[in-house]
Formats: sequence, C-alpha cells, structure tokens
Amino acid sequence: MTVSAALTDFVAASRWEDIPAPVRHEAKRALLSYFGTALGGSRDIAIQHLQQVLSRFSGPAEAGVIGHQLRLDMLNAAFLNAAASNVFDFDDTHDPTIIHPTAPIAPVLFALAEQRPVSGRDLLHAFILGVEIECRIGNAISPEHYARGWHITSTCGVFGAAMAAGKLLDLDARHLVWALGSASSQASGLVETLGTMAKSVGVGGAARGGLFAALLAEQGLAGPDEPIAGMRGFARVSASSPDFSRIMQGLGESWEILANMVKPYPCGVVLNAVIDAAMALRDRLGASVPDLAYIEVVAHPLLRQRTDRPVPLSGREAQVSAHHAVAVTLLHGLPGLDQFSDAWVDREDVIALRGRVHLADDAALPVGTARLFARTNDGRVFRVEIAEARGSRSRPLSDAEIEEKLRQLCQHGCPGLDPSPLIDAVWSLDDAADAGALMRLARPR
Amino acid sequence: MTVSAALTDFVAASRWEDIPAPVRHEAKRALLSYFGTALGGSRDIAIQHLQQVLSRFSGPAEAGVIGHQLRLDMLNAAFLNAAASNVFDFDDTHDPTIIHPTAPIAPVLFALAEQRPVSGRDLLHAFILGVEIECRIGNAISPEHYARGWHITSTCGVFGAAMAAGKLLDLDARHLVWALGSASSQASGLVETLGTMAKSVGVGGAARGGLFAALLAEQGLAGPDEPIAGMRGFARVSASSPDFSRIMQGLGESWEILANMVKPYPCGVVLNAVIDAAMALRDRLGASVPDLAYIEVVAHPLLRQRTDRPVPLSGREAQVSAHHAVAVTLLHGLPGLDQFSDAWVDREDVIALRGRVHLADDAALPVGTARLFARTNDGRVFRVEIAEARGSRSRPLSDAEIEEKLRQLCQHGCPGLDPSPLIDAVWSLDDAADAGALMRLARPR
Repeated sequence: MTVSAALTDFVAASRWEDIPAPVRHEAKRALLSYFGTALGGSRDIAIQHLQQVLSRFSGPAEAGVIGHQLRLDMLNAAFLNAAASNVFDFDDTHDPTIIHPTAPIAPVLFALAEQRPVSGRDLLHAFILGVEIECRIGNAISPEHYARGWHITSTCGVFGAAMAAGKLLDLDARHLVWALGSASSQASGLVETLGTMAKSVGVGGAARGGLFAALLAEQGLAGPDEPIAGMRGFARVSASSPDFSRIMQGLGESWEILANMVKPYPCGVVLNAVIDAAMALRDRLGASVPDLAYIEVVAHPLLRQRTDRPVPLSGREAQVSAHHAVAVTLLHGLPGLDQFSDAWVDREDVIALRGRVHLADDAALPVGTARLFARTNDGRVFRVEIAEARGSRSRPLSDAEIEEKLRQLCQHGCPGLDPSPLIDAVWSLDDAADAGALMRLARPR
Repeated sequence: MTVSAALTDFVAASRWEDIPAPVRHEAKRALLSYFGTALGGSRDIAIQHLQQVLSRFSGPAEAGVIGHQLRLDMLNAAFLNAAASNVFDFDDTHDPTIIHPTAPIAPVLFALAEQRPVSGRDLLHAFILGVEIECRIGNAISPEHYARGWHITSTCGVFGAAMAAGKLLDLDARHLVWALGSASSQASGLVETLGTMAKSVGVGGAARGGLFAALLAEQGLAGPDEPIAGMRGFARVSASSPDFSRIMQGLGESWEILANMVKPYPCGVVLNAVIDAAMALRDRLGASVPDLAYIEVVAHPLLRQRTDRPVPLSGREAQVSAHHAVAVTLLHGLPGLDQFSDAWVDREDVIALRGRVHLADDAALPVGTARLFARTNDGRVFRVEIAEARGSRSRPLSDAEIEEKLRQLCQHGCPGLDPSPLIDAVWSLDDAADAGALMRLARPR
C-alpha cells in the first residue's frame, strides 16, 4: 500500500467514535488558541495589506474574517484568517516538528461550515484528522526539511488543510489522493521569509491552497497516485531521506495533536525556555538589571540558527531574536505582544541591554533547554537553567490560561468584542448543530 | 550587491530602447505561441474543472479567459490562461532549463492590460524582462533543481510573473525585491504531478502567485532582502549549489528569450528528436510499419528518466511517453493533438506497436539526440539518428510555421474564432496603444 493511499484510507474511514476524549479536548484547546491569535493578529499591518489586495478579488461574501465585519469568499477568508492567526507566531506549535498546525486548517473548516450545514462534531473530527496528516508528513521529513529552509507550517499545512476540507466534503479515498496531489502542486514557504510580512503569504496560501485542492478533487481534477512518497513526490523532493514509517506507524492509535503546545509568549517557540530563564534571572537580580554587563545564552545550536538576530529592525524580526527576548524579559517581566512591537524594538534601554546578549552553542544540551550566564558590572555572576519551558508538553498551559490568553489577544486586536460567548462556544463545540454559527461570535457586530 | 538587488535594479532601470530588435521579435513569437496553445487548451478537461471551481470565487469580471466568453478577476483569469496554455505541454520551451517561460508570465500582463492603459511596447518590455529573470534563476539551479523533482516552470515562473507584473506596475527596485519575497513564499510545483491534471494547479498558481506578489508589493507588503540567494532563500533551498554567476553575468547584454524554442509537437520537448527519428524511419519503412518486431530508442539517460512510460493510461500521460510518441508517429506521421488524445492511447494498433518499443541509455549521446534501431519480423534492420530536432535552437520553426500552429490550435480548441486578426495584432504589438484590446481577439464573441 502506498503512503498516500494509507493516509487517505485512514481519513476516509475514520469515525468520530474512533477519536479518544483527550484528543477531542486537545482539539478544542487548539481552536481556542486559534481564535485568540487570529483576533490578536487581525489588525496587524501585514494582514491589512493582504486584506486590501484580496478584498479586491473576492467572490461572494460568504465567510467571515475574524475580528472584522468583513466577509469574503471561502478561499480568501481562509487565507486571511490563517495569516492573522499565525502573524505573531503566537499560535500553537506541534512539538516534534515546530509546525503551527491549526492556522492552515481551522479557517478552512469554519469557512466551509459557513457555507453548508456542518455539526461541531464533524468540524472537530475533520480538524483532528487534518492535524494528524499534516504533522505525520512533517514528522517524516523532520528535522532536515526545516533545517534546509522550508517553512514547515506552510509546506505541510497545505496537506492538512486539504485532508480536513476533504473529510468535511465527504470525499472518498480516491478523491482524497487527488486532493493531496493538487496540494502538492502548491506546497511552498521559505524560512528566509520569517520575520517579514512575506511569511504570511505562505501561511495564508497553505490554507487557501488546501481548500482549493479539496474543492478541485471534489470537482474531479485528478492527480498522481503517490504525491507524498513518489520518486518526485513532496517528501522525497523536499528532504533527502524521508522516514515514511513516521507516517504509517500507529495511524489511528497515537494522535499528533497530543504533542501540540499552546504558546505562552508571542515569539518563536524556541525562545520559550530563554524567556523563562531570563525571567528567573530577573527575579534574582531585582533592581540590578541595568547593571548587567554580559549575558550569554547557551543552548543547542538550533537556537542560534533560528534566533541569532542581535539587531532586529522590527517587532516582526524581534519575534525570532533571542537577544530581544532576553532584553525585554529582563526589563519588563513576562513579555506580551507589546514587548514584540516596533516601539519596544526601538527603545533605548532595550537596545542597550540587547547589545550585551550573546549566544553560544552547546550541542550536548537538549533542544528546548536554555542556560543563562550573566555578569554584572561589579563582577557578580549568575547562572540559570530552564530544562522545560512554560508551555512545553510537560508544563502545558491550563485551560484557564488559554482562555485568558484569548481574552488578552481579543483586547489587543478587537477590543470591541466580548470574547466570553466565543470561549463558551468552543468548549461546547462537540454539541453544536451548526459550527458555522460560531464565526459570528468571532467578529464585531 | 545581493543577487535579488542586482535583478531588481536591472528590471527597474531597463528601458525599451535597451531591448535589441531580435529580442523583441522573439518575444512576439513566444506570444503567438502562447495564444495558440492557450486557445488549443481552453477546453481541456483539467481547464474545465479549474474553471468550474475558480468561477465560483471570482471577483469583478475584469479580465478575459482565452477561448471563452467568460471574464474573471485578474488573478483567476491569469491562473486559467496560464494553465490552458501549458496543459498540453505544447507551449514554448527555454532550451537550457526546459522552463516553459511564457505560460506563467503572459497571462498576468494581459490581465493587467485589460485593467489600465498599457501600450503594446510596455507589455512586450515587461514580458521580456519577466522571461529574463525567470530563466536566469532557472539557469542558476539547473539541472539539479528539475532532476530533484521540482517542476521548474512553476517554481521559477512565479518569479518571472512577479517581475513582469512589477515592471508594468512601475515598482521601484525596493518594491520589486518585496515582490520577489512574496513570490518566494509561493514557489511550488512537483515533477510528480506531470502527466496528471494536478500539474496545471502549479502552473496556474505560478501566474496567479506572481501577479499577487507584485500587487502585494505595490500595497506595501515587505519581504526579506535576499529571497533568491539568501541562506534560506529559494535558490539555496531548492538546489544544493546554485551558481549565481548564471544570474548576474551579462545581465542586459545577453537575452534568455533567444534560447526559447517554439514546439512542433504537443508533448514533452525531450521527445522532439524521438519523433523526428520515428518520422524518418516511417519514411524509409513505407507500408512495412506493421511488420516491425522491435524498436529501440537510444538516448541520453535523461530521456528514459522523463519518458519511460510503456503503458500510458491517458492522453496526458502519453505526452511524456517515448513509447507512445514512437508508435503514433510510425502509424500516423507527424503527430498533432489528436495523436496524444485518450482515444489514440486506447487504439489497438497503437497499443500493439507501443509494446514493441524499448528504451536504452547511452550517456555519451548529447541530450536532445535520438537514435532509433528497428528490426522487422523478416529480419530487416534500420538505423536512424537525429542530432538536432525540428523546433530546436538550430532548427527553429519559421514565423509562418508558428502562425500555422496557432491556426491549428485555434481550430482544435475554439473553432468559432477567426485567428487572423489575433495573429496580425501580435505581430504589430509594439505599435499598439492598447495592449489589452488584443484579448478581445482571443475570445469568441
């Protein structure tokens, strides 16, 4: 059996009853996180630019844009909502691959649910399956795929979105393979664009492209038999030795969404432990933070590869700057969206402290561990190590913390909206007869 | 100076007066070829499926769909026209890279020209520059990029389309770099999809994505400084050792469109010499074709890698089957679209003869050379070798042959249309005040 056939047989045959309760609950946590970050990002400048251009090319106003009164056609609404929910890199993260799994998938499902009758249960089910496929493909090509420069959220997201949409459209396995094929024609996204607005073009495109692929398959547009594992298929082309057992093993038994993490800080997830370490250092330094002469962040080389930006030029770049993350945490405490804004990037105290932050590699440290070494002007020395960051799989945010994150993000991006009905609706989504109705709660009157 | 800056400075500074006359003429030949193949492909089943889905999501009816009365928004029209012009792989081919250069670029420019006043000269100029950037990027990553499995027409086409559109929009160099950045987020397309309808999703997406990228840049959506040659930029991610001198050297002095070939046969360009050889064999065999017992095609291994399909299942697959190409040429003479249709794939005489065709490698032969060895049932042996195929750079189609190709394709895809005014308009495009008016000549009343 081919890899693509195994995946699509699984998606086509899966029933809601097959999904364990903890998996269902984790899906709701991911969706809460999704609405929070989409509300928070809904007025970002990149999203405004995208909205300006896409609104000009929209078909029927059939699907809502989160945080706005605006409605667009399904493809464009899915694009914008995906881009908004990921724009601050504050959305949820699949631990093994660092895929942001929800952004490319959830908006596609809610757009479809505004179109035709979809129960909350069917939407949750399709969402869980989409995440499963997206992350399993990601597992098979990690870590090389991302290390080479592919923005894995976009490249794998398009497959997850296609499978989730295909499940809602009730496509059979043969048509689902076609959807994977048309998704493979659109799989794109580069790490080079991270820290710039062009990143959102990839992430939005993954959602739009996945929905488009499923609709094309429904229409009868055929594709190759093995778009994932074929000789010139996605996995082999974008990684030199994909491990297809990571796709096939335990399908329907283990669930990738259980490896999903809701982020505590609005920046690259690899910075979580760095921020926790800086916070611990701040607690010990008290009023002495300005006296710091030298701060060294020691971590697995991956941290330096992804976050070595001593002089970020924008809030966006600051999201992937270890130097900035350390400086703002030391100065402010646990950082929120404001601390990764352009204004904070330009603050003199931040600039001064950032200049004293240095990165060092220790390949013996596990990925996700951060060690801080600091020295004050008068020669005092501090050492801090965080092995498991807040928001990691062993220290997940509580349900209440995720709700609070949504409230704060709503206040940031859409202050006129009361988020409580939305929060309640997500928690009770598996009992909802009309999942699409939820979108009205994510937009101002 | 970075590679992206060099490219965009060149595009921004280029003037019509800088373009040599033979380059201008070759651009018109490419556009004639474009309209021909787009008319010919306009009713293909893949295009019908795409049209069905995209029409549902179109904004204002502002840009024509070639061969149809239908008008769609610019993005969707560009998608469909690009897909149609490439669907049979009968469009023009850039010799060094086998990029089909025109399909992703021309539809973007004509869509823009239906929107705002654009002279024929400005359109030709932007087209030539788009092809230049697209093919130079392709040169830098060839042959590895395609060999690895990237469909280079799509992956590089999005950059050409972005630069061509950016030139028409009069973007400065800084904004053109941003357009390259948003194009890089969308660069996709896999060789695995060739021979299936999903290929067209990539090619259409390249046109749409390039136009989208240029419009986003105009709107202010920023991107990375070096989307092409950055450490995680397009070229380095999709090829292991890109040669950036192939992008930089001779920019503005040599012109890639002069390496463009207009195809004589509606199938993979690598089959041209094979078909010529089969035709020469047919001329020698006369009525003895049915007596052939064994036919061997000897060529560089690349031919086998791309066209080893002894049992194609559709006309689409037959376009990349050396076995099919040999069989139909021997039976019919020089093949047209009909000989690569599903009907011919299923013909008993074709099936019988196809089964007697075998491929063999000879790495010492230049790419593009084909040698045929044939034996009849009564033991007669024939040998034929074609070093330079019809339609190759040393044996280009004449202007009149390109016109005739357009007429035949128009008859195939849009028999109600008189192609003569369209042909005249392309030849006089550099004197046209309104390039967009030409689109009315490519669509039935």
